[in-house]
Amino acid sequence: MAVSLGHNQYGKAETRVVRVYRDSDPHEIVDYNVSVALSGDFEDIHHTGDNANCLTTDATKNTVNAFAKEHGEAARQPESFGIALAKHFVDDTAPVSRARIKIEMYPWNRLQHDGTPHPHAFARSGEFVRTATVTYDGENLYVVSGVKDYTVLKTTDSEFHGFLTDRYTTLQPTTDRVMATSVTGQWLHTDTEQDWSKSFDQVVATMSSVFAGHHSLALQQTMYAMGEAIITEQPEIGEVRFSLPNKHHFVVDLSPFGLENDNEVFYAADRAYGLIEGTIRNDAFLDRAPAAGAAFDPGQGW
Amino acid sequence: MAVSLGHNQYGKAETRVVRVYRDSDPHEIVDYNVSVALSGDFEDIHHTGDNANCLTTDATKNTVNAFAKEHGEAARQPESFGIALAKHFVDDTAPVSRARIKIEMYPWNRLQHDGTPHPHAFARSGEFVRTATVTYDGENLYVVSGVKDYTVLKTTDSEFHGFLTDRYTTLQPTTDRVMATSVTGQWLHTDTEQDWSKSFDQVVATMSSVFAGHHSLALQQTMYAMGEAIITEQPEIGEVRFSLPNKHHFVVDLSPFGLENDNEVFYAADRAYGLIEGTIRNDAFLDRAPAAGAAFDPGQGW
Amino acid sequence: MAVSLGHNQYGKAETRVVRVYRDSDPHEIVDYNVSVALSGDFEDIHHTGDNANCLTTDATKNTVNAFAKEHGEAARQPESFGIALAKHFVDDTAPVSRARIKIEMYPWNRLQHDGTPHPHAFARSGEFVRTATVTYDGENLYVVSGVKDYTVLKTTDSEFHGFLTDRYTTLQPTTDRVMATSVTGQWLHTDTEQDWSKSFDQVVATMSSVFAGHHSLALQQTMYAMGEAIITEQPEIGEVRFSLPNKHHFVVDLSPFGLENDNEVFYAADRAYGLIEGTIRNDAFLDRAPAAGAAFDPGQGW
Amino acid sequence: MAVSLGHNQYGKAETRVVRVYRDSDPHEIVDYNVSVALSGDFEDIHHTGDNANCLTTDATKNTVNAFAKEHGEAARQPESFGIALAKHFVDDTAPVSRARIKIEMYPWNRLQHDGTPHPHAFARSGEFVRTATVTYDGENLYVVSGVKDYTVLKTTDSEFHGFLTDRYTTLQPTTDRVMATSVTGQWLHTDTEQDWSKSFDQVVATMSSVFAGHHSLALQQTMYAMGEAIITEQPEIGEVRFSLPNKHHFVVDLSPFGLENDNEVFYAADRAYGLIEGTIRNDAFLDRAPAAGAAFDPGQGW
Repeated sequence: MAVSLGHNQYGKAETRVVRVYRDSDPHEIVDYNVSVALSGDFEDIHHTGDNANCLTTDATKNTVNAFAKEHGEAARQPESFGIALAKHFVDDTAPVSRARIKIEMYPWNRLQHDGTPHPHAFARSGEFVRTATVTYDGENLYVVSGVKDYTVLKTTDSEFHGFLTDRYTTLQPTTDRVMATSVTGQWLHTDTEQDWSKSFDQVVATMSSVFAGHHSLALQQTMYAMGEAIITEQPEIGEVRFSLPNKHHFVVDLSPFGLENDNEVFYAADRAYGLIEGTIRNDAFLDRAPAAGAAFDPGQGW
Repeated sequence: MAVSLGHNQYGKAETRVVRVYRDSDPHEIVDYNVSVALSGDFEDIHHTGDNANCLTTDATKNTVNAFAKEHGEAARQPESFGIALAKHFVDDTAPVSRARIKIEMYPWNRLQHDGTPHPHAFARSGEFVRTATVTYDGENLYVVSGVKDYTVLKTTDSEFHGFLTDRYTTLQPTTDRVMATSVTGQWLHTDTEQDWSKSFDQVVATMSSVFAGHHSLALQQTMYAMGEAIITEQPEIGEVRFSLPNKHHFVVDLSPFGLENDNEVFYAADRAYGLIEGTIRNDAFLDRAPAAGAAFDPGQGW
Repeated sequence: MAVSLGHNQYGKAETRVVRVYRDSDPHEIVDYNVSVALSGDFEDIHHTGDNANCLTTDATKNTVNAFAKEHGEAARQPESFGIALAKHFVDDTAPVSRARIKIEMYPWNRLQHDGTPHPHAFARSGEFVRTATVTYDGENLYVVSGVKDYTVLKTTDSEFHGFLTDRYTTLQPTTDRVMATSVTGQWLHTDTEQDWSKSFDQVVATMSSVFAGHHSLALQQTMYAMGEAIITEQPEIGEVRFSLPNKHHFVVDLSPFGLENDNEVFYAADRAYGLIEGTIRNDAFLDRAPAAGAAFDPGQGW
Repeated sequence: MAVSLGHNQYGKAETRVVRVYRDSDPHEIVDYNVSVALSGDFEDIHHTGDNANCLTTDATKNTVNAFAKEHGEAARQPESFGIALAKHFVDDTAPVSRARIKIEMYPWNRLQHDGTPHPHAFARSGEFVRTATVTYDGENLYVVSGVKDYTVLKTTDSEFHGFLTDRYTTLQPTTDRVMATSVTGQWLHTDTEQDWSKSFDQVVATMSSVFAGHHSLALQQTMYAMGEAIITEQPEIGEVRFSLPNKHHFVVDLSPFGLENDNEVFYAADRAYGLIEGTIRNDAFLDRAPAAGAAFDPGQGW
């Protein structure tokens, strides 16, 4: 029986590097979790354990740390840091033909001291994690920005009715419900040079504003409205992908206790949860874009 | 051999209740995770399975939900919500002689829509979790407020040297290091009526300001300074307890790559971590206070 | 600007259903976490909130629960349960053109009572989670089985040397190291009818035996050897994909304490970790197989 | 206002040390997570940052690693390893008057290779975590053993009825339910020398056998029966403390689909959950024992 090696990749995952910019006053910090995945001429490693082409995962970690110093300006934004790393691995390491750099960024806010912002003390924001994924194959450079763990909720302006009913449908329609989700979003840039920070902030502001103001008939509709607004307002973005768990808040039945519950008391459920996922595309970009799949695909299909 | 039952308690843990205040514009929300632990005349349940004295854990959950409606004003703050619940269980349920209500509160911020705060859309803050633990035995009422998962960091103004050295000491002294911790703090109130929200905000502001401004020679010293400032500024607080993991940020050795690292690039370590814990007390309060242990003790000794 | 909807899917994620087979003695149980993702004619939901084609996620949850009873025999194995569900959603619900059912299965072992296996008491195994993912588009039916959180370690018979060195390489070669990983594996079946339990057990036995007996020069080589053995021994398997974190165990330097450490005392690191991923294929199957990507792709590209 | 320092403790938490015994064939391994907490003459550290009495947390980590080599026989069991460490810190370090060593142990099973147990390859068990906590103050030595994350379930032989009903009670009584819990148990030894492994295995066997065989009228009753059996059968154990979450398995209502559900299909709920906690004591031991609280108390009251 003929057995062969298919797609493969390796590298150091989750290098936790914090870069402090101390040459200015006040200090600045960036806090990253960087994962490197390399593909290339690695058949021999798998077949015979011949590591001659193997850049060690330890060296990829060292590179992340060293680049935080050597490429300090690039390191100020996860997208530019990812680009610098991806280009290095592919361009400077012969057996490597493709690099994928995935970065989580944990935002920090400046602490107050005696009523004014302190120059070198911070609190971790916790509101969301910013992400960037850069993929480079020596020719194409894909930059994907994103956000995750951004939990938003609205207490009204959400309906859900008129749905298909089959034998297993018991849900009652509603014209007023709590809608909440923890946003995971990723968006592909049409360009590889941007004011990354400004672009990111604008995306979050747009999705937040749309989420707040949209009168929702379905989470899918709200998701699409958020993506549509982002693409309409930011031509540098070619495609947005969302993964939105419907964080159910069920109205608690208080009637056994002689109490009315007019959408005031809710049970915040853990599982099961609806999971709504979708892609919203700028059609103009798709005409000239390489397949977006390569930009988002984590490699093993999951 | 004589075997007997010692301390025991039971109740529903982690009831996730969200209360929306919709009668005003804008809407307000509180988001709680409530755990109930009851002690009392429960020997027979253990010995024979006679449940005649057993208030079901399901009923304690129902009570939490119902009280969110019936005692809507108390439910606006975790401390007053805990007091209402604890008193109810002890005063209204004959076999219950002691109740301990532990509440986690997840703060939410109002979302911006078209540049202004939206009346009914929110994002979860994530900066910290606010906590309250109320213990009532029919006579004594202990109210403990707290914070957890509040991660703070300073990039300088932290030294560590002059320490004891034994055979197993290899650490080098330093006059400049990153200091970071994830604050878990709990403080016992000297009174059972307060403006809980104002008191909580002031504690967080004080600990943040001290953490930022303190020139630290040891995390213990910073911890004590935070506790001392809280107690000095807020006479309603009798005792503060901290549990502070030292979230180590190690300077990465970049010298093999010909690079200097003057406290610019750090490795944020997971484990092991120093864990610094301590109690700071208002001595005046201790003279007249009941033993604080009962206020903090989770019951089983862990 | 033209904006359009791309790939989308939705359904109830993480329905936690436990099925007890009580009609026999001893009782049997299966413990599942089932996620449903449906694609189809759902444009209107996104564009206008018209839910006429929307099978509610609540109904998909109800279906999972009902099928655990109605299709009790299928429900004994995650693969056959997934097939029954996927076919139902596509064949019986007009707007649905594709269903993806992802199942985690938590194995339980029978408890001992007075030295013999008890007919209705169990302990959760915890050694690994068994998984199955079934994708059906009305024509093609893909069945992927898998395992995750299966942590294995060998204390010797692992070398790593002869690797490429660049400017950022500092790792020292070794001829004897601890090798450990937490196996996530998924394999695509060439057929949609199998003795699923037997097939799964054989895969786990093969990978365990190869891992134990293989003299490793690289984790990639061990990974390939495991995949090759599985494919060689089980013609019903067309492709295996692995994601293997290298759970580093670093030799602790005890020399400052005058102690030798001949691979006896290790530090089990959390992060960063090497991540080795690869696909091993049965070439004969690939000639006649549909693209494997559809079988593994979670839908949004991540 | 007079402010003072109360109880305090510090040390390195979660040192992840793996010890391989290679001098024999087959190899043996132990896998520990060790946390050290020291109390003593540490006022000055808190008040002035004078670290002269401060054994660094880094040194406590080094000590754990060094002892894994120097005291290799003691390190084979978590209890004896904890005793060696606790005695060292108190007896050999002048400012330290009390040490608390908390150890988690992750059991591993030997892998099969070609049908026989392999001499140096292992799979992590995952069935439970074994724990030990040793507290020593220079005079008293407390040894507490334990287990956690041990999830057990019985499909029948569990009733719950005859309970107190108040205004908030809606639960229906039942004569047949699934009972499941994730056992956290800790037990105090009456002696400081034991065959720790044998004693631990016997406790787990006893609690498992009782859980399986007990016809339960309340989880409290089952808990007491487990504790009573342990104490009756093992005179070396003076007190057992349990913390038992009631992992609710709710019967799914399948009647809307025209299906009966005779305790066959269950929803495994996450939150809220009943939490049953209790202490079962050997009265003979209590007469001569020091206060058990010191053995279990984690220090800060939580």
